[in-house]
Amino acid sequence: MTNVGIIGLGLMGGSLSIALQERSNTYRFVGLDHNETHQQQALELGLVHEIVHTLDEISKCDIIILTIPVEGIIAISQQLHDLDEKCTVIDLGSTKAKISSSIPESIRTHFVTAHPMTGTEKFGPKAAIPKLYENKVVVLCDMEKSGTHQQEVAKKLFSEIGMKLVYMGAEEHDRHAAFISHMPHALSYSLANSVMRQEDASSIVALAGGGFRDMSRIAKSSPHMWEDIFRQNRANLIEAIESFEVELKKCRHMVENGEWEALNKWMSEANTLHDIL
Amino acid sequence: MTNVGIIGLGLMGGSLSIALQERSNTYRFVGLDHNETHQQQALELGLVHEIVHTLDEISKCDIIILTIPVEGIIAISQQLHDLDEKCTVIDLGSTKAKISSSIPESIRTHFVTAHPMTGTEKFGPKAAIPKLYENKVVVLCDMEKSGTHQQEVAKKLFSEIGMKLVYMGAEEHDRHAAFISHMPHALSYSLANSVMRQEDASSIVALAGGGFRDMSRIAKSSPHMWEDIFRQNRANLIEAIESFEVELKKCRHMVENGEWEALNKWMSEANTLHDIL
Repeated sequence: MTNVGIIGLGLMGGSLSIALQERSNTYRFVGLDHNETHQQQALELGLVHEIVHTLDEISKCDIIILTIPVEGIIAISQQLHDLDEKCTVIDLGSTKAKISSSIPESIRTHFVTAHPMTGTEKFGPKAAIPKLYENKVVVLCDMEKSGTHQQEVAKKLFSEIGMKLVYMGAEEHDRHAAFISHMPHALSYSLANSVMRQEDASSIVALAGGGFRDMSRIAKSSPHMWEDIFRQNRANLIEAIESFEVELKKCRHMVENGEWEALNKWMSEANTLHDIL
Repeated sequence: MTNVGIIGLGLMGGSLSIALQERSNTYRFVGLDHNETHQQQALELGLVHEIVHTLDEISKCDIIILTIPVEGIIAISQQLHDLDEKCTVIDLGSTKAKISSSIPESIRTHFVTAHPMTGTEKFGPKAAIPKLYENKVVVLCDMEKSGTHQQEVAKKLFSEIGMKLVYMGAEEHDRHAAFISHMPHALSYSLANSVMRQEDASSIVALAGGGFRDMSRIAKSSPHMWEDIFRQNRANLIEAIESFEVELKKCRHMVENGEWEALNKWMSEANTLHDIL
């Protein structure tokens, strides 16, 4: 039996538990969360078999999954000690450079710092779904800093739930994530607010088709979680927003000046995304 | 038997034909399109029973559907004449004010000017799908300018394919459509281009999760079609882009200045979209 401790009982940890339980009956799940409602829900939904209340209890697990905001991951990494030689700690934080460099040297080889490129706009244990990780990418960062055993455990675990493994330095990850995930969230929040501020917002929203629904979906994401991500990846996020602003300004300029041929060309360039996605 | 003429054999006209054929066998479809490949594909896919080559032939139909760019709709409206008293012309153009005011007075009552708030990023007859219109909104504009018979025909047709009918003035429609559809397309094109311009674009895109996929989907839309829409709805589009820019600038400012509490509040305001969508 492999004991898996999950710190942070929400969408990510809960979905991981469901996915692993569907594939194997050799895992036993122990949960730690300061939110009592989430503790209760996680037990009722069968996401964990037991709730514990101290880090000491959870640090006896074979695998420890950290699915809490980045600051929390860093704080907990300072408090973990006396880990068994084979213990593997995997954090799923959305930014990686600060985590990777903050883990105490004494336990650095125990850590695998990973970012599954998946999620929904929902959160909490009730948001957990079986296929959240299937066919999605997980970025494994600074793997050379993890122990050989810990690398194998993490690769096996993510492969088992159907993920595609990508290896990258933590700094490079953070820049990429700003463009592919964090900046798009800033756009979606901005889009939602720009519509909601209109006097006739509800009659505008009544006309929403698939395009608007898709583009505003992630504007429903947790402010608590995204405030933390924006804070952690501030410089990269601003760079990505600036790149976006350059393009939107071009678009507005072409429309204002009736440069239709140039606009058409610019739209065709955007179409090329189709070739790689 | 009701003869339906479709001018412009693509996603919208093709999907309409499939939806009507699924619900009733009393319709016969005649198509007109200058693209010979599309003529052939529409016949092969059973979207139309016959291809004609002149407006005179198609104007004998009971219902004429115009699913071509706005400029084309206006041009054709100048050439239609000798319509039967019961003939109903329905245009599906994405902007409505210019169309509504350009239709010659002599045939204005024949026209119903409608905008189904649906679509995909794909185009051409092969893109046609059965459920494109189901449970979606269609905006019927300036209906007081249409004849009583024509109003009834249009309402019956859109209801038959499962659409929700919304009535609105053409000017109001165009402003609403700028916020809910046209500006989001400008954002999606800008997002795609801002990522594609990065040196390591393909390694960034390799990390794409659901959020980026959803937000960049409509960046794959036809430049030909969207150049026309941006051109037709220029002033409203610019106003909507400006409203968006105000919000994105706020977001950037809060991140740059570490105003996390204000950022959290701003994100929570965006979350309220959830209450009405």
